Amino acid sequence: MSQNEEVNSTSEDKLLQLQALVSAENSEAVCAFFEDKSDTEIALLLESFPPNDRELIWQCVPEAIKGEVLAEVSEDIREDLMSEMAAEEVSELAKDLDAQDIAELLDTVEDDVKDAVIEQLDDSTREQVEALQAYGDDTVGRYMNPETVNVKVDVTLETVQRYIRILHLLDDHSQEIMVTDKENRLVGTLSLVDLVKNNQEALVSDFMYNSFSLLDEMDVHEAAMILRSKDLHFAPVVNECGILVGQLNIENILEITRDDSEATMMNMSGVSEDEELFAPIMRSAQSRGIWLGINLATAFLAAYVIGQFEAVLSQVVALAVLMPVVASMGGIAGSQTLTVIIRGLAMGQVGGNNRWWLFNKELWVGAMNGLLWAIVVGVIAQWWFEDTMISLVIALAILINMTVANIAGIAVPLVLKEMKIDPALSGAVILTTVTDVVGFMSFLGLATLLILK
Amino acid sequence: MSQNEEVNSTSEDKLLQLQALVSAENSEAVCAFFEDKSDTEIALLLESFPPNDRELIWQCVPEAIKGEVLAEVSEDIREDLMSEMAAEEVSELAKDLDAQDIAELLDTVEDDVKDAVIEQLDDSTREQVEALQAYGDDTVGRYMNPETVNVKVDVTLETVQRYIRILHLLDDHSQEIMVTDKENRLVGTLSLVDLVKNNQEALVSDFMYNSFSLLDEMDVHEAAMILRSKDLHFAPVVNECGILVGQLNIENILEITRDDSEATMMNMSGVSEDEELFAPIMRSAQSRGIWLGINLATAFLAAYVIGQFEAVLSQVVALAVLMPVVASMGGIAGSQTLTVIIRGLAMGQVGGNNRWWLFNKELWVGAMNGLLWAIVVGVIAQWWFEDTMISLVIALAILINMTVANIAGIAVPLVLKEMKIDPALSGAVILTTVTDVVGFMSFLGLATLLILK
Repeated sequence: MSQNEEVNSTSEDKLLQLQALVSAENSEAVCAFFEDKSDTEIALLLESFPPNDRELIWQCVPEAIKGEVLAEVSEDIREDLMSEMAAEEVSELAKDLDAQDIAELLDTVEDDVKDAVIEQLDDSTREQVEALQAYGDDTVGRYMNPETVNVKVDVTLETVQRYIRILHLLDDHSQEIMVTDKENRLVGTLSLVDLVKNNQEALVSDFMYNSFSLLDEMDVHEAAMILRSKDLHFAPVVNECGILVGQLNIENILEITRDDSEATMMNMSGVSEDEELFAPIMRSAQSRGIWLGINLATAFLAAYVIGQFEAVLSQVVALAVLMPVVASMGGIAGSQTLTVIIRGLAMGQVGGNNRWWLFNKELWVGAMNGLLWAIVVGVIAQWWFEDTMISLVIALAILINMTVANIAGIAVPLVLKEMKIDPALSGAVILTTVTDVVGFMSFLGLATLLILK
Repeated sequence: MSQNEEVNSTSEDKLLQLQALVSAENSEAVCAFFEDKSDTEIALLLESFPPNDRELIWQCVPEAIKGEVLAEVSEDIREDLMSEMAAEEVSELAKDLDAQDIAELLDTVEDDVKDAVIEQLDDSTREQVEALQAYGDDTVGRYMNPETVNVKVDVTLETVQRYIRILHLLDDHSQEIMVTDKENRLVGTLSLVDLVKNNQEALVSDFMYNSFSLLDEMDVHEAAMILRSKDLHFAPVVNECGILVGQLNIENILEITRDDSEATMMNMSGVSEDEELFAPIMRSAQSRGIWLGINLATAFLAAYVIGQFEAVLSQVVALAVLMPVVASMGGIAGSQTLTVIIRGLAMGQVGGNNRWWLFNKELWVGAMNGLLWAIVVGVIAQWWFEDTMISLVIALAILINMTVANIAGIAVPLVLKEMKIDPALSGAVILTTVTDVVGFMSFLGLATLLILK
């Protein structure tokens, strides 16, 4: 098997190979390199090059899969590559694409190009594309595959198999066959496995099962969470009348969950989920700038708190030295809790009365770690500054801040969720504000009470 | 379809329902509640209750799927639930499980129980379980499904279908049939779709394809990355002689990629990837304590840097007030870059000469945002303290720290990767150290040069 040689060739190896060819501007070799690559691989590679190199690479993408590659790359790159395409060119690309990919491409182009392309489609594809585009952005309908294989309930498995062969149905990723009534209402699902493994004289009704179905207008992220909790990799999609309108298959579900988990990770660090590795400098600077501005406001809030204690700071300079330790320990403790809670919320595991159990737990975890590190920090401060009052003040401040941090780590995401704000997006910045303010206030406040003469 | 009513019942709704039953200690109702739930749903719910409630819930899990549920829950909970099980009980649970799930259960119990259970297995299962357990922890072999459906290359599709029906092969999740030679070497793959949709007189060789295969000893995370880049949801697994030993199917691949992306998110916030929402207080306090200790060391390093500038701090108290603003802006800017780079590394998109392009980009993004926020901060500081020197010093320090932060945001993960250390695990703490130290040093250093009298 020739592929076995490739087993250990990681994405990075391929990237290095292609980089060498692109650097040498050897476009013939680039084209040859792409011959045995899939659309996903090419899309990933295309995203791994700076904008300047992409033109050369794009020209070498095999014509037959250019459309798939475009549907696969990130939105920014798709926009760049399609920005100067005429309607005929887009129509040409759309020719062999399925409705989902065509809809994706059309979301990128200007309205006049879009209309011209839609006009060129054959009737059934046009209908499907228009149906997809009619759905709201985050609905199941927007992500589903409108193409399904439907059979009736009272035929034999053998008939189903013959029907599939005669009409040449089923694409590569089909796993399930839908069973519908004459109004096209979903009545059940027949798996390909059952179709093959059972007595061919049996009826569809003998092996069809009541699969879990989704409503087309449902929020797609919620749908993905439900499917995950049920460990399902497939679901028929129906409209409110129970009419079958499409299916979410494993590709669709994977795409949604990957996007979601990436968005969480990016958002928690203050990066827009759409930020692309090789985005132009201006675009990245701008998208990150917003978050920096929000952070600046909270940083000045912390500075304002410190400013209230200028008197004690000017008397005891050691306080300024130790100040960041208090804030930093609270920040870490809080973000540990925040992360655990955000994950629990995403899995639907936090709610109802277990919130009180978690509050109680986090309170104690915070207090215990607070006590431990208060002692450690107190001892180090004593050894450093040889001033019992300073050591006592920082130890108390650490204990207070770490306990509050853990409670805030659970309270902040729960409150944000109640307010229908994504905790991953703003949880971290709010939490840091809390731990900074509480940290500085308790440390410098205690110092004012106990040390200021 | 009765399931449609359930469409809008999210995991959280189910959690609330079950909480009500458990609070009322209505064990009959709890058992009834579980009747129509899948093993995955029950596992998720079991993880959503504090340890004290789990006993009641566990007793109500239908006997037939107790084994699957155990294999599904997180390791800590599995250990708790299995801690007092005798060998007979484990054997009973293992009876209907596949080899993968049995191996998972046996990883949890004491060696003597394990040996006793293995002895009770039938020959073919025992062989499979022992083969799985012989693989190293993070290898493909450990995660694969050793069960495959194998056919020969020179038979007709019709024969394959009959063979499947007679031997009742194929389980629910089968999607592909392996084609092997008489030494059981993999020669290709036949998809279920092709088996059904094509002329039944045709030979397997007409439709079999050279599927991408994995080596059993390969690192499973690397394998998952390769499969993702190729958009594959299935791969046969072979040993170094090319003999077919199992398959990675979509369940296995999903499990690996989910675990990986969760581990990244948790590790970036200083939480162990195994930390469970309802872990006992002591266990959580301990596992988070380690990270807090590491952070304390770096916080004291920052304090030490500040300590070097006591002279200027005691003269100009405004410096102590503004100090955290410099560190905070650097910290955010750096972690934005870090997150983008960690994602790029995980996708295999960063390497070779594009690193220089990225360095250059991050340098400019850092410098541009640095300049913008330097001006903003300078103006605010001027308005607040009405001291041009202080405003100049903080503006310069912000510019320096944000630029350095962005460069560190790419340099730190790249260096860690060269050292074979996971950037997600230690990248954030190293980066914060850099931005704190550089921030305080540039701010207070410049102040010493320009303001200290």
